[in-house]
Formats: sequence, structure tokens, C-alpha cells
Amino acid sequence: MSTSSAAPPAKPPMRDALVAAAFQLFLERGYEQTTVDDIVALAEVGRRSFFRYFPSKEDVVFPDHESCLADMTAFLAAGESDEEPVRRVCDAARLVLRMYAENPAFSVQRYRLTRRVPGLRAYELSVVWRYERALAAYLRGRFAGRPDGTLRADVIAAAVVAAHNNALRSWLRSDGKGDAEAAVDHALACVQSAFADAPARPAPSPFPPESPRPDDVVVLVARRDAPLWQVVRQFEAAQGESR
Amino acid sequence: MSTSSAAPPAKPPMRDALVAAAFQLFLERGYEQTTVDDIVALAEVGRRSFFRYFPSKEDVVFPDHESCLADMTAFLAAGESDEEPVRRVCDAARLVLRMYAENPAFSVQRYRLTRRVPGLRAYELSVVWRYERALAAYLRGRFAGRPDGTLRADVIAAAVVAAHNNALRSWLRSDGKGDAEAAVDHALACVQSAFADAPARPAPSPFPPESPRPDDVVVLVARRDAPLWQVVRQFEAAQGESR
Repeated sequence: MSTSSAAPPAKPPMRDALVAAAFQLFLERGYEQTTVDDIVALAEVGRRSFFRYFPSKEDVVFPDHESCLADMTAFLAAGESDEEPVRRVCDAARLVLRMYAENPAFSVQRYRLTRRVPGLRAYELSVVWRYERALAAYLRGRFAGRPDGTLRADVIAAAVVAAHNNALRSWLRSDGKGDAEAAVDHALACVQSAFADAPARPAPSPFPPESPRPDDVVVLVARRDAPLWQVVRQFEAAQGESR
Repeated sequence: MSTSSAAPPAKPPMRDALVAAAFQLFLERGYEQTTVDDIVALAEVGRRSFFRYFPSKEDVVFPDHESCLADMTAFLAAGESDEEPVRRVCDAARLVLRMYAENPAFSVQRYRLTRRVPGLRAYELSVVWRYERALAAYLRGRFAGRPDGTLRADVIAAAVVAAHNNALRSWLRSDGKGDAEAAVDHALACVQSAFADAPARPAPSPFPPESPRPDDVVVLVARRDAPLWQVVRQFEAAQGESR
């Protein structure tokens, strides 16, 4: 069915066929009851082909994490030195979300499988750990020489991963309905506002609703020993502004 | 050598003997090369006794985590409802540090072993994950009904664990030299000041050194439409204060 004008596939079809066969069997028989031999038989490929793509049965469950981790590392390395570092790691974390959101049905299936199989849960923890260490390594570099630089780097990396995963898992639990990107953006903005060198969002208004609106108020700061005329002039100038 | 007046041992001696035998063999032969049979032979106990205390060979490497996790859960459950929640989870994390600091030589040995054996590294990640979920579950309860309550809970739990482990691992890398408790206290204070409902430390001064000192400055807030005399009186009253 292929034609000479068709675009080359983004991934080797054999690899995709192995993933599809594996998930079909995991859902039909259960993960533990499925062997690599079962998978290669259904995909109609040899055992060696399986191990060319995947070091183990666990790896076929998370087929895109290695390339996502490589993309993340490259993305962090390409950052400008004047870019706000917390923003950069938040953007790096969004690469993971995008991988999940590209294929919601597959991501939801895998999420359910991972909940049920302790070995996969452990594998997932080690994957998450590697993402976290990639973010922390970048931040350690950016914070080098600062007091508590490595502490700050490790805490922010963990906070970014936790915020990302809180939003990602809510979306997966809702069967991939709703706007995953918006949820992750909101979660990461909370971390950014707690940690970024420059605030990601303006500080909450110091004027609660029962007070006069900000533009109805004048704030004067004067030295205690300033002459009275100077304060009067400052007040009058402020009154005249933005009227 | 025992006498009738000796205090009862805190832990079953057979359990301690199994841990000691296991570590002796792990160091002599390597972790992978040591079997449960080797361990029970050296400890002079039966195979069944081993599995009464430890579900697997990994578990003998982390013999106190289960009881520490139970202590942490009980500690969190016993908290007062008016206690600042971030302070409470920081105190709960200190239970883990105390377990490590009780036996520095053993903790350092285990740290080195865990670095070298990927299976133990994975096991440790799952233990850390369980601590983090215990802290997050407590915080989710305390933040129930707040906007972004579960997000905040997950982020703070991850930050507390990351800060604790940053300090703990520095101490382990230094072969258990230095004051582990002081290092963990410092790391946790940083998290508390970022997240606690009431700040753990005073906010940095808004007056940089080149500005007048705070008590040399008067701040006036007035409605824009206030009569001039009112502002003058307010300034004079402020001038008179704390002189």
C-alpha cells in the first residue's frame, strides 16, 4: 500500500507494531501473564527484533521516555545564560506532558496498567527520578556559586516534577478528558511564582476589596526629617498623576 | 555473658544478627553474589527465620524503613489541628534523619552499597516515594477545601523530601562526618520559609543598605481626594512616633 511519494514514517513501523501487540496482550491477559515470546508472535517479528528496540518487557510499556529524556537534556543545554532558570525547567517539564498528550488513549491505558502492576510502578519511579535529576543538574549549574545552590536546585526540580505529575495524573484519571496543557501550565505557574528569580505573576493586590481601589490611593515615602513643604509638594504631584 | 538485670534488647537479636551477617557478606563478596542461603548460614539461623523478618534480600538492606514509615504515619496522625502543616511535615521528615544518624557507620555502608547496585537504587526510590506519599496525604487532609489544595500538598511534600535528602546525602557522602541534624534543619527551614502559612523566618528587608534605615522613613497612605491638612497632620503624627 506504500507509494513512492509517501513521507517516511517518524518511527520504525516494527517498533510501533511491537508496542501495539504488547498492549493488546497486556489488556487481554494481564501484564504478568504476557511473555516477550507472546508479543513477538503476535507482532510477527523475531525475538531479536524485540530486544533491538527494548532492553526488557518493562521498556515496551514506556517506549518514548528515553527519547523524551534525550530531548529534555538537549533542550536544557540549549538554554540562554540570561534566561530565568525556573522558567526553563518548567518549559523542559512540558516536553513530558506533550509526549503524554500526543496520544491520550495510549497514555490512559498505560496509566491504568501501571497502577495495577507493582513492577511497572517501580520502573515508572526510576523514570521520573531520571527526569528530576536532569532538571536538578541544569539548575545546579545555573545556581553554581550561590549559597545553598544545590539545595535550591534539588528542591525546585522536585517541586516542578511534583506539580507536573499532579496535573498529569488528574488528567489521566479523568480518562484524558479536559485540557492537560492548561492544567500543567497552571500547576507550573504556582511553582514558578514560589521560586522564580523574577516573579512569574504579579504579587496579590495589597488592597482587599473593602479598601479604596488602588488608583484612589496615594502612597508617599519620605525621610522622617524631610521638610513639610517637600511632603506637601510630593502629595500634590501624586494627586495630579493619572487623573 | 547475660545477666538477669540486663535491660531487654530493643530489637530481636536474631533480626540484628541477620542484618549484620548480610552486610558482612555484601561487603566481602558483593550484593549480587550473596544469596539468602549464605546469609542464614553465617547467622546460624534457618531460612524460614530470614523470611519471617524480611520479605526479600532487598529488605535486609533497609531493615528499619517499615517501622520508620509507621512512626511517621502515627506522628502525622497525632498532630494538632491548629499546628502549622508545613512545620508538621518537616518534623515528620526528621524521623527519617534520626534513623540514619543513630547508626552512622551502617548508614554510610548502605549508602555506598546502594550507589553500586541498581536494584537497591530502585528499591530505595520506592521507599522514598512511600515517605513522600505519607507527607502528601497528611497535607492533602490539612489543605482540603483550599483552592489547589492537592497541588500544594504534593509540591510541598516533594520539596520537603528533596531538601531532607539533599542534606542527608551530603552527610552520607562525607562518611557521616559533621552535624547531620543541623544540615537537615537548615534545609527544611528553607522549605518552610518558602511554603509555611506563617513565615518561618522574617521576610528580607525591603530596604537595601544604601537606602535610609526603616526608622528614618515615613510611609503615608492617603486617599487621592483627601484634603491637604489631613495629609499634613498624618505626616506630623508619623514624624512624632518612635522618636
